[in-house]
Amino acid sequence: MNVKTIPITKHKKGESFPLIDSVAQEEPLEIRIEGRSVAVIMRSPDIKQDIELVTGFLCTEGVIEDYSDIQAIAHLVEPSNPQYNTIDIILSSGVPAKQRHKADRTFFASSSCGICGKATQERILQYFPPITTKINISIDILCTFPEKIRKQQAIFQQTGGLHAAALFTSDGELLVLREDIGRHNAVDKIVGWALKKDQDCSDLILFVSGRVAFEIAQKTLGAQIPVLAAIGAPSSMAVEFCKKAGVQLFGFVQKERCNEY
Amino acid sequence: MNVKTIPITKHKKGESFPLIDSVAQEEPLEIRIEGRSVAVIMRSPDIKQDIELVTGFLCTEGVIEDYSDIQAIAHLVEPSNPQYNTIDIILSSGVPAKQRHKADRTFFASSSCGICGKATQERILQYFPPITTKINISIDILCTFPEKIRKQQAIFQQTGGLHAAALFTSDGELLVLREDIGRHNAVDKIVGWALKKDQDCSDLILFVSGRVAFEIAQKTLGAQIPVLAAIGAPSSMAVEFCKKAGVQLFGFVQKERCNEY
Repeated sequence: MNVKTIPITKHKKGESFPLIDSVAQEEPLEIRIEGRSVAVIMRSPDIKQDIELVTGFLCTEGVIEDYSDIQAIAHLVEPSNPQYNTIDIILSSGVPAKQRHKADRTFFASSSCGICGKATQERILQYFPPITTKINISIDILCTFPEKIRKQQAIFQQTGGLHAAALFTSDGELLVLREDIGRHNAVDKIVGWALKKDQDCSDLILFVSGRVAFEIAQKTLGAQIPVLAAIGAPSSMAVEFCKKAGVQLFGFVQKERCNEY
Repeated sequence: MNVKTIPITKHKKGESFPLIDSVAQEEPLEIRIEGRSVAVIMRSPDIKQDIELVTGFLCTEGVIEDYSDIQAIAHLVEPSNPQYNTIDIILSSGVPAKQRHKADRTFFASSSCGICGKATQERILQYFPPITTKINISIDILCTFPEKIRKQQAIFQQTGGLHAAALFTSDGELLVLREDIGRHNAVDKIVGWALKKDQDCSDLILFVSGRVAFEIAQKTLGAQIPVLAAIGAPSSMAVEFCKKAGVQLFGFVQKERCNEY
């Protein structure tokens, strides 16, 4: 299915070597109802499953009740959008106006949010300038981060339910750690902490406990933090975006090993 | 910090006993800019960290650049909203109109989305009727689900980057499994599959690979699936909502053990 292979550098027990690795593909999908754009969600692209995704989304959001509420559903294929990243739906005439217009008022979803309605990487890069400095990262120090945040992550141990984000210096000092039920909330808290303190982030490392989808990469650039590292895996779009944005990206960070993208 | 203790039933190696357990607290936070509601995000509530969260959110979304762009930021405390779940911000006069209005056009975030702009559980329960049937679940069968989905979860093993959702019969038959980079996309795909097949879901179990925050519970009700089970932990709001919605909720499902909420 949807996997992209990319070249990475694997660091393991003091050695570094190039490798071809797989990352989960991530692409935006724009949902239109009778031509009106109602939502952009980040998803694992799959032409057949896209139909299921949009149908299920419209059902769980209360727009349709069963499949007969959809008169037609198809990918929009136009020269400007060759990647099957837009779906248009025509609702059946029986769908009440109240439901039909639920879409206009209520949802602006995303895979784990943050991107809603502003879709393209290019637009973001026009708004937030790419980072041009390159920080010298010690892999040995980076690999101590998971242990350091685990020691401080009180609630996760108690409930198993939280994401963590932290800001480290390149010397390995933990400046701040925040937890939240939402992955990007933890990141936003870190950024808010830095703003309030007027903390210069231009040589710091943002470390997150989970996976890295596009919107975490986007927020890292938004905060102008040059390095993003994670215990989990990055998505294909996170890898692409970080490259364009000048953000150094590390994934699967563990004791004695990590992947550099 | 933000933990709620709740009574649960623990099932372990064929025995069941009541227990008081902790779940991570989850609450909506409405963000207003000069009185205009611009976003509702699901977050771990914390009066001090809410300020960091909103500040960081406005920065990473491109509304503000530094802390001086905020003239005032505070929780709104009014009789109708006693829970510190609304924050209002007054931007400094120097913030350009372009940034100031970015909020209107671009973001409708959420902790992992799905709720955006419709906030209350009550409104959802008015729209989607609570489930009134109770399914008889065999704990022994339920505890086989993690192994069954692991066997089919191809991409996760390859990339470490995907969420899975599956639909099971109460006899333990796996009807469909879907993976996606977004947790609720996997659920929406399942719902879309069922809609298209005209599959009766009224005695089925929705099983998810990760944690259960509010919006997964909401989608379960939206699809009128009576049982929601997860490998991960539920949030406080998922627990509350499932109770009101008549959705039977199981968490930390593993071989030979699970928690019933």
